Amino acid sequence: MDEENQVAYVAEIEKELRYVSTWLKQRGREILHDYKITIPQFVALQWLFESGDMTIGELSTKMFLAFSTTTELIDRMEKHQLVLRVKDEKDRRVVRIHLLEEGERIIEEVINKRQQYLCGVLANFNDTDIVSLQRILAKLHQEMKEK
Amino acid sequence: MDEENQVAYVAEIEKELRYVSTWLKQRGREILHDYKITIPQFVALQWLFESGDMTIGELSTKMFLAFSTTTELIDRMEKHQLVLRVKDEKDRRVVRIHLLEEGERIIEEVINKRQQYLCGVLANFNDTDIVSLQRILAKLHQEMKEK
Repeated sequence: MDEENQVAYVAEIEKELRYVSTWLKQRGREILHDYKITIPQFVALQWLFESGDMTIGELSTKMFLAFSTTTELIDRMEKHQLVLRVKDEKDRRVVRIHLLEEGERIIEEVINKRQQYLCGVLANFNDTDIVSLQRILAKLHQEMKEK
Repeated sequence: MDEENQVAYVAEIEKELRYVSTWLKQRGREILHDYKITIPQFVALQWLFESGDMTIGELSTKMFLAFSTTTELIDRMEKHQLVLRVKDEKDRRVVRIHLLEEGERIIEEVINKRQQYLCGVLANFNDTDIVSLQRILAKLHQEMKEK
């Protein structure tokens, strides 16, 4: 592919990613409507569900939020019994956020509904495209993490 | 592909799309740091730039925002001379939002920086993957619009 052609493809990919993200965000919002959690709470639950217990500092980094903002977020989530602060058994100065049963129930349901939505969207895709999409998105995510 | 396999692929795609959206959102935020516009202002400029003049109602629908929220957003953007309300020549009751030179300059620069970022991310992708990514994302966007 010559450079001009590549620039055109990148421009299209940028635009399509922007549109797809917008649709997903909107659908995600609609799904959260049925639950008593906000978007940042959903994102925090998602990280704890997929990466396990972590400190406020680690969660702040993952969420691109200030430490103080994450602390307030976790305060509210602890009050609603979605998560719990747990002291490290070996080093009592280290505190990690642990997902509680109710938090896990909600995040599993929300992710499940997102998957159902996507399953509908992908209904007209053939197997080759589904496999390619998964592989290319995983690569894209990996490259983004490294830049 | 059997059903079990498909469910696993959809789950992976949902997760990767969520991660890729998060990275793009964060990178987009960093780019906007250098400009005097907010994220909703960027989204409004993007629609006016890519779809041309439109009414507040049309823009509200595109942005998934309440009419009143979009009105306030456009008020601020008009004050900053990014856009202008223009009466339809044939039907003076119809008012459309028109992108001004400064708004166009900003949106072009911001989109250009997003493309540059993506160009770096895609540097290790071969031509086949770039072409597939563009084609599959366009299809995904189309199917999302139709569901």
